[in-house]
Amino acid sequence: MTVSATQHAGGAEDTQRSNLAKAQAISEQEIFDAHLGGKLSVELTAPIEDQRDLSIAYTPGVAQVSRAVANDPALGNSHTWASRLVAVISDGTAVLGLGDIGATASLPVMEGKSALFKRFAGLNSVPIVLNTTDPDEIVETVTRIAPSFGAVNLEDISAPRCFEIERRLIEALDMPVMHDDQHGTAVVVLAALTNALKLVGKQIEQARIVISGAGAAGIAVAEILLAAGAHDLIVLDSKGTLHRDRDDIAHMKLEMAGRSNPRGVAGATAEALDGADVFIGVSSSKVPEEHIAKMAENAIVFALSNPDPEVSPEVAQKYAAVVATGRSDFPNQINNVLAFPGIFRGALDAGARRITLQMKLAAAQAIAEIVPEPVADRIVPNAFTPGVAEAVARAVMGAAQGAEA
Amino acid sequence: MTVSATQHAGGAEDTQRSNLAKAQAISEQEIFDAHLGGKLSVELTAPIEDQRDLSIAYTPGVAQVSRAVANDPALGNSHTWASRLVAVISDGTAVLGLGDIGATASLPVMEGKSALFKRFAGLNSVPIVLNTTDPDEIVETVTRIAPSFGAVNLEDISAPRCFEIERRLIEALDMPVMHDDQHGTAVVVLAALTNALKLVGKQIEQARIVISGAGAAGIAVAEILLAAGAHDLIVLDSKGTLHRDRDDIAHMKLEMAGRSNPRGVAGATAEALDGADVFIGVSSSKVPEEHIAKMAENAIVFALSNPDPEVSPEVAQKYAAVVATGRSDFPNQINNVLAFPGIFRGALDAGARRITLQMKLAAAQAIAEIVPEPVADRIVPNAFTPGVAEAVARAVMGAAQGAEA
Repeated sequence: MTVSATQHAGGAEDTQRSNLAKAQAISEQEIFDAHLGGKLSVELTAPIEDQRDLSIAYTPGVAQVSRAVANDPALGNSHTWASRLVAVISDGTAVLGLGDIGATASLPVMEGKSALFKRFAGLNSVPIVLNTTDPDEIVETVTRIAPSFGAVNLEDISAPRCFEIERRLIEALDMPVMHDDQHGTAVVVLAALTNALKLVGKQIEQARIVISGAGAAGIAVAEILLAAGAHDLIVLDSKGTLHRDRDDIAHMKLEMAGRSNPRGVAGATAEALDGADVFIGVSSSKVPEEHIAKMAENAIVFALSNPDPEVSPEVAQKYAAVVATGRSDFPNQINNVLAFPGIFRGALDAGARRITLQMKLAAAQAIAEIVPEPVADRIVPNAFTPGVAEAVARAVMGAAQGAEA
Repeated sequence: MTVSATQHAGGAEDTQRSNLAKAQAISEQEIFDAHLGGKLSVELTAPIEDQRDLSIAYTPGVAQVSRAVANDPALGNSHTWASRLVAVISDGTAVLGLGDIGATASLPVMEGKSALFKRFAGLNSVPIVLNTTDPDEIVETVTRIAPSFGAVNLEDISAPRCFEIERRLIEALDMPVMHDDQHGTAVVVLAALTNALKLVGKQIEQARIVISGAGAAGIAVAEILLAAGAHDLIVLDSKGTLHRDRDDIAHMKLEMAGRSNPRGVAGATAEALDGADVFIGVSSSKVPEEHIAKMAENAIVFALSNPDPEVSPEVAQKYAAVVATGRSDFPNQINNVLAFPGIFRGALDAGARRITLQMKLAAAQAIAEIVPEPVADRIVPNAFTPGVAEAVARAVMGAAQGAEA
């Protein structure tokens, strides 16, 4: 690495952080207690305390509203909660690091996601978990319940099914639909990479970028980086680099092989990382220290696998100028919560029917701009930096309205 | 009528009520303003204010809970909100007096219903409206999203589809399922009739009972009254009395024709009401004064059609000892809100997988007992009488546990 070491947290700060982590140690008991009875509640926006209130909120008053919506469906947007309600939909097939644990076991995660929509974007959200994993049935089911919602956040659906399910739901529904494991991750990675490249004085157009992982996140990250100007980009799956001569890949991987790896690099991480400027890990494959050591000067390493990064941040820092992980106990957490609340909020505020590439690029730029002078330890805001979702929402809304204009 | 006129509200009270109604007149503007943005919100049960809170409610902490639920699905009942969440499900085919207005237009009503679940029983509830009216698709869709919920309240689904849909969902789902338009109505009617019969000194076993309406409510009311001991019970559809010689009826009506009308009365309301002790209207068919005039002494008239009762309460009072309607601006409102919150609360508190006939009978008895000394103007509590849902829940829970013992 060549960026000054003073830009990294020094030894004293490391100790401080470690002490803080110990003080904040969270016991299993505390976690289970916090989940007892669930993490969400449904509340009334106005009290119902007497017969008059009841006659307004329910019969006979409500009949006037229903009749008006029947005559003018647009009134359904303004006079029900549904048009701004985000459904967090999962089939439980790819939950965190736990894999295919099923609908019921995915619920604590989906409740958490709904809680974050409220906490960070002020949006109402309910988890809907499905006891089917068939893409046809998922698309059909979500389409049938769609009048209940205003947006769909797909969550923890395994690849490659997630690509087809998202594409078909975007086509079928007249509302914003986004698979957060793909695009939320991609947006935050682009934001972080924008600031990391700025810090080391490199351009995305010239940077050699390696993405380890060709699942939901890997493919989406590759796509947004290509859209942002990346050119020399290599994606790896468990068998090695995606390239035009691979005959064992299909669908999204095949398509990505055709759009990336312009130098036709074959082999695995060793070959891909030789002279690379950027490594982005979104699989659980370990990367040995000697491969990281072969990266270019002022390298950037995003080791995002959770809870175990592809390479430990301590090791990566020996060779890289900027290191990020997916964990909250290291600097530069690449956390989807920076993106998805504001993206959905902006799309709903704009009345957008689609979440477009332009809206995602605008979201990434907004996140990057919150840290105008990035240093190695802070290339992205953290979840609680004030105003992140608001800034993202404004940028997304602007992109949505610009597209219409 | 022979019950003392002092048991009815006198002229002064009528004037008072009328003045009150005027003072409380609700403008269309006020109703629409109250619906702006919807009537529900989703809130967090605990704040997420820092990284530590986030690590408990979401990653990495939540993974421990999801892993535990995957290993022991029963933990899903205690550690998510779903097991006590009531889905209010409608296809919008029979909404209030408005008919088949579709999913979106039904939403204000369903939001209101969810609001009442919270207000009266403390239960979380979300409206799920469907853009399909096909019974197979409805059953399939609700079954696929069922892991998201703990109970299903079917609402405003047209007859005869509602009977099949409810039956099949009860079979398919391992949770309480109830079509409130049928059973909520039936429970409150039985409660009111219990107290009305007590007041006039008649027994249900001997009473001649006429039900006008063979839709969702009419059939369910007939069934619960038969279960409660009624014997001489006649159900009318738009073509006249249901009886064994009718060759134009099928399904639930045919089945009811076989279980009711033991005297084989043919004809319409005139014939059915001749000498009848009880009239229960749950259709919008008008009943002429001269038919009401032919009822027995100390007659009971429940004219429940909304907003226009089958016979006006003023006219009915000329002949009947007890009169009830579905409206809040007359005495004795037969209001489902007396029943459904406590029924679902009791079923969920008991961990019941079914809402049985015994639980419904217990609910009716609990509602009746809240008015230990009924008078003509007060045979049932009103929606805001304290403790109704709690008493119903206790009775339902007792019946559920008694059935298991």
